[in-house]
Amino acid sequence: AERLRYILGEDDEPPNPTLFTEMDTLQHDGEEMEWKESARWIKFEEKVEEGGERWSKPHVSTLSLHSLFELRTCLQTGTVLLDLDGYSLPQIIDDVVEKQIEDGLLKPELREKISYVLLRKHRHQTKKPIHRSLADIGKSVSSNTKMKRFESAASAFVFGVWKRGGKAKFWQPLPSPPLSFQQLKNKFIKKIPKDAEASNVLVGEVEFLEKPFVAFVRLLQATMLGGVTEVPVPTRFLFILLGPAGKAKSYNEIGRAIATLMVDDLFSDVAYKARDREDLIAGIDEFLDEVIVLPPGEWDPNIRIEPPKKVPSADKSAGGGGGGSDDGEMPEVHEIGEELAWTGRFCGGLYLDIKRKLPWFPSDFYEGFHIQSISAILFIYLGCITNAITFGGLLGDATDNYQGVMESFLGTAMAGSMFCLFAGQPLIILSSTGPILIFEKLLFDFSKGNGIDYMEFRLWIGLHSALQCLILVATDASFIIKYITRFTEEGFSTLISFIFIYDAIKKMIGAFKYYPINSDFKPDYVTMYKCECIAPDPGVSQIRRQLSGGILECLKYGGSLVGKSCKFVPDLALMSFILFFGTYSMTLTLKKFKFSRYFPTKVRAFIADFSNVFSILLFCGVDACFGLDTPKLHIPTIIKPTRLDRGWFVFPFGKNPWWVYLASALPALLVTILIFMDQQITAVIVNRKEHKLRKAAGYHLDLFWVGILMAVCSFMGLPWYVAATVISIAHIDSLKMETETSAPGEQPQFLGVREQRVTGIIVFVLTGISVFLAPILKYIPMPVLYGVFLYMGVASLNGIQFWERCKLFLMPAKHQPDYVFLRHVPLRRIHLFTLVQIVCLAVLWILKSTVAAIIFPVMILALILVRRLLDFVFSQHDLAWIDNIIPEKEKKKEDDKKKKKK
Amino acid sequence: AERLRYILGEDDEPPNPTLFTEMDTLQHDGEEMEWKESARWIKFEEKVEEGGERWSKPHVSTLSLHSLFELRTCLQTGTVLLDLDGYSLPQIIDDVVEKQIEDGLLKPELREKISYVLLRKHRHQTKKPIHRSLADIGKSVSSNTKMKRFESAASAFVFGVWKRGGKAKFWQPLPSPPLSFQQLKNKFIKKIPKDAEASNVLVGEVEFLEKPFVAFVRLLQATMLGGVTEVPVPTRFLFILLGPAGKAKSYNEIGRAIATLMVDDLFSDVAYKARDREDLIAGIDEFLDEVIVLPPGEWDPNIRIEPPKKVPSADKSAGGGGGGSDDGEMPEVHEIGEELAWTGRFCGGLYLDIKRKLPWFPSDFYEGFHIQSISAILFIYLGCITNAITFGGLLGDATDNYQGVMESFLGTAMAGSMFCLFAGQPLIILSSTGPILIFEKLLFDFSKGNGIDYMEFRLWIGLHSALQCLILVATDASFIIKYITRFTEEGFSTLISFIFIYDAIKKMIGAFKYYPINSDFKPDYVTMYKCECIAPDPGVSQIRRQLSGGILECLKYGGSLVGKSCKFVPDLALMSFILFFGTYSMTLTLKKFKFSRYFPTKVRAFIADFSNVFSILLFCGVDACFGLDTPKLHIPTIIKPTRLDRGWFVFPFGKNPWWVYLASALPALLVTILIFMDQQITAVIVNRKEHKLRKAAGYHLDLFWVGILMAVCSFMGLPWYVAATVISIAHIDSLKMETETSAPGEQPQFLGVREQRVTGIIVFVLTGISVFLAPILKYIPMPVLYGVFLYMGVASLNGIQFWERCKLFLMPAKHQPDYVFLRHVPLRRIHLFTLVQIVCLAVLWILKSTVAAIIFPVMILALILVRRLLDFVFSQHDLAWIDNIIPEKEKKKEDDKKKKKK
Repeated sequence: AERLRYILGEDDEPPNPTLFTEMDTLQHDGEEMEWKESARWIKFEEKVEEGGERWSKPHVSTLSLHSLFELRTCLQTGTVLLDLDGYSLPQIIDDVVEKQIEDGLLKPELREKISYVLLRKHRHQTKKPIHRSLADIGKSVSSNTKMKRFESAASAFVFGVWKRGGKAKFWQPLPSPPLSFQQLKNKFIKKIPKDAEASNVLVGEVEFLEKPFVAFVRLLQATMLGGVTEVPVPTRFLFILLGPAGKAKSYNEIGRAIATLMVDDLFSDVAYKARDREDLIAGIDEFLDEVIVLPPGEWDPNIRIEPPKKVPSADKSAGGGGGGSDDGEMPEVHEIGEELAWTGRFCGGLYLDIKRKLPWFPSDFYEGFHIQSISAILFIYLGCITNAITFGGLLGDATDNYQGVMESFLGTAMAGSMFCLFAGQPLIILSSTGPILIFEKLLFDFSKGNGIDYMEFRLWIGLHSALQCLILVATDASFIIKYITRFTEEGFSTLISFIFIYDAIKKMIGAFKYYPINSDFKPDYVTMYKCECIAPDPGVSQIRRQLSGGILECLKYGGSLVGKSCKFVPDLALMSFILFFGTYSMTLTLKKFKFSRYFPTKVRAFIADFSNVFSILLFCGVDACFGLDTPKLHIPTIIKPTRLDRGWFVFPFGKNPWWVYLASALPALLVTILIFMDQQITAVIVNRKEHKLRKAAGYHLDLFWVGILMAVCSFMGLPWYVAATVISIAHIDSLKMETETSAPGEQPQFLGVREQRVTGIIVFVLTGISVFLAPILKYIPMPVLYGVFLYMGVASLNGIQFWERCKLFLMPAKHQPDYVFLRHVPLRRIHLFTLVQIVCLAVLWILKSTVAAIIFPVMILALILVRRLLDFVFSQHDLAWIDNIIPEKEKKKEDDKKKKKK
Repeated sequence: AERLRYILGEDDEPPNPTLFTEMDTLQHDGEEMEWKESARWIKFEEKVEEGGERWSKPHVSTLSLHSLFELRTCLQTGTVLLDLDGYSLPQIIDDVVEKQIEDGLLKPELREKISYVLLRKHRHQTKKPIHRSLADIGKSVSSNTKMKRFESAASAFVFGVWKRGGKAKFWQPLPSPPLSFQQLKNKFIKKIPKDAEASNVLVGEVEFLEKPFVAFVRLLQATMLGGVTEVPVPTRFLFILLGPAGKAKSYNEIGRAIATLMVDDLFSDVAYKARDREDLIAGIDEFLDEVIVLPPGEWDPNIRIEPPKKVPSADKSAGGGGGGSDDGEMPEVHEIGEELAWTGRFCGGLYLDIKRKLPWFPSDFYEGFHIQSISAILFIYLGCITNAITFGGLLGDATDNYQGVMESFLGTAMAGSMFCLFAGQPLIILSSTGPILIFEKLLFDFSKGNGIDYMEFRLWIGLHSALQCLILVATDASFIIKYITRFTEEGFSTLISFIFIYDAIKKMIGAFKYYPINSDFKPDYVTMYKCECIAPDPGVSQIRRQLSGGILECLKYGGSLVGKSCKFVPDLALMSFILFFGTYSMTLTLKKFKFSRYFPTKVRAFIADFSNVFSILLFCGVDACFGLDTPKLHIPTIIKPTRLDRGWFVFPFGKNPWWVYLASALPALLVTILIFMDQQITAVIVNRKEHKLRKAAGYHLDLFWVGILMAVCSFMGLPWYVAATVISIAHIDSLKMETETSAPGEQPQFLGVREQRVTGIIVFVLTGISVFLAPILKYIPMPVLYGVFLYMGVASLNGIQFWERCKLFLMPAKHQPDYVFLRHVPLRRIHLFTLVQIVCLAVLWILKSTVAAIIFPVMILALILVRRLLDFVFSQHDLAWIDNIIPEKEKKKEDDKKKKKK
């Protein structure tokens, strides 16, 4: 180990190139011989399936200990040439053979035979496109024989040369074969890093040897050796093992062992820097010391082990450990980051936010142009307009159309696009939210009941609230957000997800009420079902003047509807259900399609990314095929206030007494808390560490813009906007990036989120011009959109640890997934913690369903309090694993440690 | 290795008991010490999660090579006591310590300290029921401290004894602790084989030692050592490693290494038979030689490897191999078994069949009484009656009700139950099949057109055909079935599955035609939709006499239906679709639930086994909730022929000219081929080797009964019956058995099928008395049953290699599953083979859709021919992997080999 430390030297040297290893084995076909590629390694092993003529799946190389020891012996006794100046394969082989003869390892008379064998042609396993392969089938029989005849002729010539060659350097008539066409067009090169070098392993058995011929060569310069390597990558290392006949399998295993060693990070480092044979041996010994051993009785060596999701990094090398050693693991530290540090200066946080975000501003635009953005835009756009219509309709009901669908659309477009353009975290999507809706309803009723002008009152509340927000910004008040741990954060987002799911299902069930099904209908008695319009005038009732022209006309003239089928609407409810459930489950299925085996990866990724678009289109198509009068997306087509007696500007004075202007500060306080909590918890969720955001958050800047937009919306009589949790999460999910190319078998890594402002801005611009898109949008049935809502709600539950913990209740201990926290915290403690959360959520849910919904955001503050109380019930160790430690406590813990040391 | 062969001796000795290994580590808690269980092994390792206070999932023990070498050194230097006569822990420990002192390995003054440590209490990780655990939460804080105080008092007492003890044998005051209550009620004992013995591994670090104290003890007799082992299993081996402080982790790894060795089949054998230390070392060396090595850079030692599906058997020990060695694999040989050998004697096959099946006859009954049978009965019953109704209806149409639903029910019940009672393979379910239906239709039309009496003609055809079947039985003609390879067999069953799926979907689409949806319906114009019955008399048309009482009455009186809603039936089509698709996907989902993580294994198995019952019940419930007039299962309620002019017996003479009796032999030949092929291919599929049937097949006996039943049915004017492929496969699937108990981590093994006659008989008896069950069955909507059909069709495609190969077309090579044949046959050859099969099936499908359907069974013979032609296109090697080798060829191959040898 010390020797190794000496060899490997300083850390600051440039890293060695990645090694691509190819193993070729010598194939005998009667008199003929050739080197046939039998396996390759970038990080994991890919083997040529002999019969299948194909590459196996990449797998972890399982070696036998025996072969490793044999390899060790080989390196101890064979020829080791380090820093050989080689420029072609024949010359290198000549040098190796010369050295062997010098050292007395090889009889001189075998020189030519060995060289002859080592210079045989190399055949590589290349993938043919399937259509060509199929075309080949016919030819295969005839051409194979032809080819063989040609080859044997060629080799007979070479053989002749060799026989005549005598003392002349054998390699002269045969320079390194040029790069073949196959080599150049081999697509596999894409998988190999640019600066990679090759190591070639050649193993085989020959009749004429009595003891093995072993050579390990490192070239001074990596050299292109022509057709030796499957891809045009220069060769740096060469390992040759030729041995007496009868032990091919053993040679093969030794070849696999050295190949596996060559791609091992540590050993390849040793191989590059070794000064002599002993260094290499030390490298093997070090490798052996770190090796993981599977008992033969518990594992079938024929099973190919799939590459792990996560490979230990080279510098960590946690040491032998085995299945048992997880003592090193530590829970991730709760890190909200410096964004929430309290500066103590006026607007200090805001200033830092701007300073932090400004450099990213240009990239926020050019990074948005990507195919993935299109899917994200369509998905979020549909979510936003559905939301705008739903909330617009509800607001219209609540405020007697002072704010309606038109206001909702305009407000969403204006506030959303401004926010995405200037805010600290442009991935956040603004929207109306439930609590605000309830507040407006209460406010309107109060105003009406007390003779106060609603719009003016609302304007003042908005202005006060905006001011309060700005004060919170100026004083860096957002720093308290860091006391929000996973407990609060996940409780909040789970609740919001449940509300989404609940609302979607409620709307669906509403369809069954809105379009009642006539369950007594008997097809054979169709004549019994009719609905007639009876004229109102009792005097002329005998004449039964029937009004034609539909219900509206009938009711307009005061008629009444009589008949068995009046109350019922056929088909629409069931059709709505099919559309709703179909859209939901189709989206879910297509999303999962990413992990199916069918179609190439890119096609699958495309289908999964656009899953929502595909399912929406499909079910719009289904709806259109049936042509039923399902409820459609109706958008106002002219820009004018929903109520005719209001304009686009609310004048602040004149309608209410002066004290109202001041008194409105009090309800404004409630709105401020509501906005603050909603906005910042969503921001915390969006800025989660798991999302790997590079461009940092901007809590103060976000709140600043929410405040400003609030004032603007109040003046224009538009609804107020705040971050929408579920849609923001959906936004992030649809913008996730993964590594595209990697060594075969390596799992694609989550890289982060496409952080930019383009998708958000386009979504809201589209929302604004939806008014003009109405002719297209009217083909979208509402149940399809509710299906999208349901999907959003369900999808946003993914990855929430609380939800995972809830599921644990239903799983017997032995079937539970191997979550890290389960290894460290007793199950009953975990269940207790989860139960507390469930109770909290149940209470919040009940609150939400009553008028108390207005103090909902305040209850979130209560959640923080509950979490603090949990500090007395759970140990800090347990909380560190299933929640996070509250910052203060963390400090205290460290202080305690320091004290102890003293 | 030779040494080992000598130790292990002869193979015919009784096998050693299974070893259960428990590893306890020494825990220090201030002054206190105790042995805490930290891992256990039956076959795989289960670790105690330190923080989680729970057992980890069973996993493959990954060891470090280092620890194995350290263990080797330990055994070389430590004390090895073989065949110690021990009766209690203190005495054993005393002997061990004495031996160590004798050998100069331990200073005498440490004797008591060592003994004291080794006799500390053992604490086991036991699973508490969750409700108790939750109840414990409150207590935990207070009781923990109490417990500790108590324990420390107790140990202080012991400590005192030790101090005063002096030279007196220390163990006298402390006999082996008695079995604790916890030990006795530990449910884990169920997982340990009855005759198992325990090996206990004790590792720990103590302050007072300077060099490790190592002992390996084998007791002469396995002895119950009280509280040392978690379960009351007698201990045979004891491994003790106590070492100086500071290397706990290393000791732990050594402990894991010896524990893993003890459960290794080979090493445990060595341990039982070793004569001295060297034998044990040889055992370790042998183990090391077989070990599988994972390179550290490609695998994270913290990943716990799930136990493999299949563990190599001990006697095979294929040797180091590694991921590459699959040369030993060979395709399974096509073995239809001796049942189809040609005896050359009259009724020789039939005689052998009876001889073979008779001994199983009693067990065919008592083995049928199992909970699983209930699910199978319900599932198959529903399939059978749906089939009976469908075919009955179609037959009624085809034969002008000479054979109708009633005949179909009676015939199914009679033929099915007789067959299940007496046939050679009672798992086969008889049913009407498509080709027979077509034959009857043609026959009826021919009879009608030529003035021949249909029933009498049919009787004679049936009699001739029955006779021909019996001749085939008598001459062992079924032996030709062995030329049916996978190619034909899978082609046939895929085709039948497709027909099932196609029919189910066709019926569903039929609902949309039968219940047309009014796509122009506008809810607002409900008054426009009505359907009136207009009286036929043109003279009184002014009065517009409206008939009430439904369509039937209206049409009866010659009225005509006028109005916009006459042609349409609301809701029923969509509801049918929901029921159909719901039943199908629910069954599929519940079936998959078996592999979910939720609920205990037994509950999941129950849900999966009864998935079809649950989904049928659920969707019958849904249907009942809506109360819509969906098409229901209607069964005749009185036993009488569908046509009034026929009885239950067809008289053979009198209605047709005499030559018809002879001429009918010709069409009978067609029927015979049809019956023979349908029956025997299904039998081959049912008797497939994969189903692991114990009770052998009875091809001749089956055909004998089909012939007899044919004659009976012909006399009674009932339809003819033959084996139904899809329902028979469903029958087998619902009766599959798996091992119930196994070592933790071991996969349940497929044991075979519950072969018995009970389920079949009950199914057909139920079918017979369905006439009386009509009041219950009328609640089952037909779409639900079509959903079940669809599921049956799709499920029977599972496990068909042809279908797997079809799917390969859509998968890029690198994502294809690791099928064995893909390793051995080039993909393009596989695709070509699959294409040929697809073309054959397409041709068959087209044939089936035309009148040529009647020669359908003959086409199956053509399939066999196509397969023989493939012998010229594909090599026998390829065919052996993707199909089977035709018996003759196999023989020829062997002959060739023999010739070569000569």
